[in-house]
Amino acid sequence: MHRIPRDHPRYESLMLRQKMVRGSERGLAVKEGLLAHGRGEAFDYLLGERTSSEAKAAARAAAALLLMAKRPVLSVNGNVASLVPGEMVRLATALPGSVIEVNLFHRTEARARAIAAELGSAARKLGVRQLLILSDRTDARLPGLSSDRAKCHRLGMFSADVVLVPLEDGDRAQALKRCGKKVVAIDLNPLSRTARAADVTIVDNVVRALPELIRQVGALRTASPRRLTEIAGSFDNRQNLGRALGRILRRLGRLSRERVPSDRSA
Amino acid sequence: MHRIPRDHPRYESLMLRQKMVRGSERGLAVKEGLLAHGRGEAFDYLLGERTSSEAKAAARAAAALLLMAKRPVLSVNGNVASLVPGEMVRLATALPGSVIEVNLFHRTEARARAIAAELGSAARKLGVRQLLILSDRTDARLPGLSSDRAKCHRLGMFSADVVLVPLEDGDRAQALKRCGKKVVAIDLNPLSRTARAADVTIVDNVVRALPELIRQVGALRTASPRRLTEIAGSFDNRQNLGRALGRILRRLGRLSRERVPSDRSA
Repeated sequence: MHRIPRDHPRYESLMLRQKMVRGSERGLAVKEGLLAHGRGEAFDYLLGERTSSEAKAAARAAAALLLMAKRPVLSVNGNVASLVPGEMVRLATALPGSVIEVNLFHRTEARARAIAAELGSAARKLGVRQLLILSDRTDARLPGLSSDRAKCHRLGMFSADVVLVPLEDGDRAQALKRCGKKVVAIDLNPLSRTARAADVTIVDNVVRALPELIRQVGALRTASPRRLTEIAGSFDNRQNLGRALGRILRRLGRLSRERVPSDRSA
Repeated sequence: MHRIPRDHPRYESLMLRQKMVRGSERGLAVKEGLLAHGRGEAFDYLLGERTSSEAKAAARAAAALLLMAKRPVLSVNGNVASLVPGEMVRLATALPGSVIEVNLFHRTEARARAIAAELGSAARKLGVRQLLILSDRTDARLPGLSSDRAKCHRLGMFSADVVLVPLEDGDRAQALKRCGKKVVAIDLNPLSRTARAADVTIVDNVVRALPELIRQVGALRTASPRRLTEIAGSFDNRQNLGRALGRILRRLGRLSRERVPSDRSA
């Protein structure tokens, strides 16, 4: 592991990269996960690497949906376990009746168990005792998905009414929607299939989005069911995605004016 | 290695990811290379994952420069060796007097040798016998670079007049320019330092850019020196980069109108 100087202009981003490399060395993340993280880095760069007002609005609607849910399920993959295991545990404890389910695109039972162990260890550090983590030994299938990617748990995804999918594949986000579930996604690409399939999409880096979501859940914990319904109902995901994309376009335009001359001949 | 369903909408991109993973498992690419590939993926997505007219124009100018060169050097790193070893060999055989030089950002002699072996094996498969591949045992240094990253070969970069750097680091591209060499870059980010430092930048995925470059070299093989000078001289890299960026901005704007409604309130 290389030491990164605190004053490096890309310190935060390089530290996250090291967390991902460590996660991959410990068998939590796969190499494809490193690639996906690199892809996210590029979108985070385009977003200016900070939480936008659109992301905050989405986190508020997400908090309302998750608090209204009867069976909220929080999906965790290798990248999430490498980057924010403690935050996932904290979010689960803030949501009554919630379950964490390990949910892998490149599924092996050994990796599912390693991720569950990582979450268990984060829970112990936080003094959390009651927490249901579903990992290996799946006992149900999500319709409309092929092979391993359909595997899930009867007490998890299969019976969930609201599912949080941070860093999810588009196919699976769409399959969850087709099953009639409310989907909350965290995705840095506002144009991705996951972002568009979800009911609420937080366009932000998961390391900033989860703390914000935990804050919003805390703020709405005592809100009435009617108030929660109002908040979730007044949120328009398509419009919010349009605003996030507008932010990227404006930033790219600005960078382009700074770095390459405008193209007058086209 | 995981099986990717043929009907997955991102099949091509996922297959490239697997090539990178295989390259890393075989000691050709490092984990930082996987992350860098992921960043490139995001830019490729923004470009529509196809070769633009700007990329073709740049490939034509690049072919002219390489054909005019006295000592063209083709730089190969771990990602290039993982993705397009055969294409690099084919390009080298199409360019009289050219040399392949293994050129690593995270340099170890073992990795340089592994990459040379990979290229040698690609050459044998193609029936190519005469091909100079420089890898370990460097005997020169590029001025203006620190430590390992300066290492190069007297018969390679050091004495080259035109250098092809696919997927190069910005520092090194700038150092090559300062030594008075013509630099041809392949880079998916039109705003990167490498893209802006090069004389000719092909903004395209290396897996599409190299076949296109090989085609253009073939098409110009019998052109007169005067014609080649004309072609190279009429190419304006800054303007071409501006167009590539304009393409990204227009595509993002179009995608945004198709996929999410415009934001009228912002």
